[in-house]
Amino acid sequence: MEKQVLGGLQWRINVPNGMSKELDPECSCYCKPWLALKSLVGGLVARVLRFLDKAWALGVSEPKKVIHGFKVGIALSLVSLFYYVRPLYDVFGGNAMWAVMTVVVVFEYTVGATLSKSINRGTGTFLAGSLGIGVHWVASQSGEKFEPIILGISVFLLASAATFSRFIPSVKARFDYGAMIFILTFSLVSVSGYRVDKLIGMAQQRLSTIAIGTSLCIFISMCISPIWAGDELHRLIHRNMEKLAESLEASVANYFRDNQSGYPSQEDNSKKTQAYKCVLNSKATEESMANFARWEPAHSPFNFRHPWKEYLKIGALLRECACCIETLSGCLNSEKQGMEHLKGYLKHASMAVCSHSCNVLRELSKSVKTTTKSSKLYLSVGEMKFALQELQNALKSLPTQLILEQVLASQANENKSTTKKECAPPVMEVIPLATLVSLLTEIVARIEEIVDGVIKLAELAEFKAFNEEKIAQNQSTSNNQRSDNPSCETEP
Amino acid sequence: MEKQVLGGLQWRINVPNGMSKELDPECSCYCKPWLALKSLVGGLVARVLRFLDKAWALGVSEPKKVIHGFKVGIALSLVSLFYYVRPLYDVFGGNAMWAVMTVVVVFEYTVGATLSKSINRGTGTFLAGSLGIGVHWVASQSGEKFEPIILGISVFLLASAATFSRFIPSVKARFDYGAMIFILTFSLVSVSGYRVDKLIGMAQQRLSTIAIGTSLCIFISMCISPIWAGDELHRLIHRNMEKLAESLEASVANYFRDNQSGYPSQEDNSKKTQAYKCVLNSKATEESMANFARWEPAHSPFNFRHPWKEYLKIGALLRECACCIETLSGCLNSEKQGMEHLKGYLKHASMAVCSHSCNVLRELSKSVKTTTKSSKLYLSVGEMKFALQELQNALKSLPTQLILEQVLASQANENKSTTKKECAPPVMEVIPLATLVSLLTEIVARIEEIVDGVIKLAELAEFKAFNEEKIAQNQSTSNNQRSDNPSCETEP
Repeated sequence: MEKQVLGGLQWRINVPNGMSKELDPECSCYCKPWLALKSLVGGLVARVLRFLDKAWALGVSEPKKVIHGFKVGIALSLVSLFYYVRPLYDVFGGNAMWAVMTVVVVFEYTVGATLSKSINRGTGTFLAGSLGIGVHWVASQSGEKFEPIILGISVFLLASAATFSRFIPSVKARFDYGAMIFILTFSLVSVSGYRVDKLIGMAQQRLSTIAIGTSLCIFISMCISPIWAGDELHRLIHRNMEKLAESLEASVANYFRDNQSGYPSQEDNSKKTQAYKCVLNSKATEESMANFARWEPAHSPFNFRHPWKEYLKIGALLRECACCIETLSGCLNSEKQGMEHLKGYLKHASMAVCSHSCNVLRELSKSVKTTTKSSKLYLSVGEMKFALQELQNALKSLPTQLILEQVLASQANENKSTTKKECAPPVMEVIPLATLVSLLTEIVARIEEIVDGVIKLAELAEFKAFNEEKIAQNQSTSNNQRSDNPSCETEP
Repeated sequence: MEKQVLGGLQWRINVPNGMSKELDPECSCYCKPWLALKSLVGGLVARVLRFLDKAWALGVSEPKKVIHGFKVGIALSLVSLFYYVRPLYDVFGGNAMWAVMTVVVVFEYTVGATLSKSINRGTGTFLAGSLGIGVHWVASQSGEKFEPIILGISVFLLASAATFSRFIPSVKARFDYGAMIFILTFSLVSVSGYRVDKLIGMAQQRLSTIAIGTSLCIFISMCISPIWAGDELHRLIHRNMEKLAESLEASVANYFRDNQSGYPSQEDNSKKTQAYKCVLNSKATEESMANFARWEPAHSPFNFRHPWKEYLKIGALLRECACCIETLSGCLNSEKQGMEHLKGYLKHASMAVCSHSCNVLRELSKSVKTTTKSSKLYLSVGEMKFALQELQNALKSLPTQLILEQVLASQANENKSTTKKECAPPVMEVIPLATLVSLLTEIVARIEEIVDGVIKLAELAEFKAFNEEKIAQNQSTSNNQRSDNPSCETEP
């Protein structure tokens, strides 16, 4: 009773600023759990809505992922026919389960990954199955007492060795899944062989259902809007080049723009400035894509033995360049103070280096995208180098003049009056500009390395000569429109 | 006949340098395949030997991975008892297979990963199983004709949705495996329910075997030399700090050492200089470890709600710092030419900044490693800042003097003779030093951010105060000896 009365009262407390504040009346003990439940459900609903919103946004921005979902659905519906169709079920019975399991586990986003997992699964099952049957035969020959012991020891040893082998980088990169399937199948075959009579028949049925499952997956993933790991890697690399150009341009433009118009414009650019971050984080995706791309058959512009390794090398060079741009952007941000009058002297030359570097990057990106040798590449590289030379000259000539002026002025002052004016140390003001020039020099050097990498790729992958460029360009325009995805590429 | 005679002849050709060279007699058609086989087998054996050699080296450097292999072996041997022991087999029958499968699939390197997979597997199986039974009931009520259609459509829709959900970052990070198991179980239960009569009994048995498998995995992974994801993340972070210190020290030392003793010393250092590369590539490992660490119960110095997210923030700051060191090392390498006389002026001050920065990094590393608030941290940071100020002063005072001397000298020359001597542009020579100072300034700024990150971590994770430091230090020495692994930490 007392609590309920208290619940009806209003409570006020004095707040430091002199006002008094009304406290919410405390709830009765019946009302509390209800409120808690309400807020819990409300929170849950809000969370689910946010989740659905995110999912919708993802689906809109990357419809390929939605299509992949449907592809898996189709594969699973087809493979369920093993159960629905009487004659099929009569043949395979409960082993049809393995076909369903295979589809769920093996069907991956890209064709290469699906192929790699299928081959891993097939090979792992076959090897482990044969070995398991062999071990089972040996064990069954050695008497009832020793059979479980021999089986147990062989499972222990092989499982330990295969598990450890998954840590070895070369196995981990390509046969990780195969090793797991090996352990699984070997254990199942050798151990369940202890109880099952028709072991070989069972093994055959399992192998054939797995074969049916994998071929279904491969067929669907290659025939219904296929997503090639090679394409993804290719696109990642040339989009990363564009991102570097974007970042570099935005960082330098930001630095020099602040001069005139202040902060607001900077914020518009901040997304562009940060584009290099995607490049820095793309190593894992590149490596797995290159790994899967090796399994893929020839498709569109790529032969079977397309030099995917070169993409990894170019990717590493891009990351080094991104590192440099990151540092440049950091240095430029932290050195905003003062020296506005000096900035003006180098603005034109710096912007020229920057825009020519970006031209080279974009030319490279275009060349990779269209798998065409660029006609303008060497010209662009020459222009970039020339612009860098000009910038260095500008820096070289700038301070000497300034310093001479200042020194002469201070000497004149000294002659005129006895108050000795201290010579201003202009080098402190030149440091940020010197850093800018140094970092731009380093960036240009790294871009030249990327150029070498792309030229090597063009040779190995036999890019088209540039007189065929026009045709390729037309083709790529449609490609470009289809695949333009503004967000950071993450591992699919 | 003719071929065999030809096979017996010797062939000679003239080589450009005037000598003639004996060609290996061509093999007969019987001998060719034999040679090919021989070289094939030889190559295979060499490859296997190389592989075993690598595996051995890995096992020696990381014995924990060998132990993990044995743990999996033990778990599998134990779970095979379901087949060997008659009463157990009588209860579970063929469903014992699911226990074996669970152990193979769920047992991961770290406790956190095993727990995460176990919970995912359990939850996914339970949810999908209940839903599958529900759908199966609805379908069975709707007549024989519609049953397979309803089942097929539900499999298609749910599998598509669940597959797509695996692309959503929040699901991918934590429930990827659970979603896969959901698809698998739902398909198996709803589809095989079409043929199997005692569906609920089967589902119960499967769930219980899975429960047995997962609890066995969790028990073994936590009791036999447990490998905690949290420990791995913790170690990765403090070792990365040490690596940054190593790299920074080696890069700057290299730059200034070349002066006196030339190239050879540089090569010894190249491994140390490259240590930052491990830091740049550790993002994926850090993220997965932090994800797994959240599932782990309290262990040794970490509570259940240890702020693992802070480690990720520190990791990101470390990578930014590593980027800066990468650029520094690149700039220093490409600017070796000339200005030897100027280098000397700044050598002492630069080395001081470098060594104080390294001190701070090592102090941070020690603080994180021992989970103790450092007593010397603020002192070290102060020293670092002071050293930086000194370096900037040195740079500030250096060129003014030099330039003044040169200008005065050239003026004197002008007065004395009519040959106008061009004033040498000393700024060009100062640029590399200015860059060095700028980049060191940037590195110091980033180290200060890392300091802030570690201080925040120390607060949130309630690091011990530094008067307890001595005890912790003693404890950590043994830790240190055990876990010192010289190679780059990769995702286990």
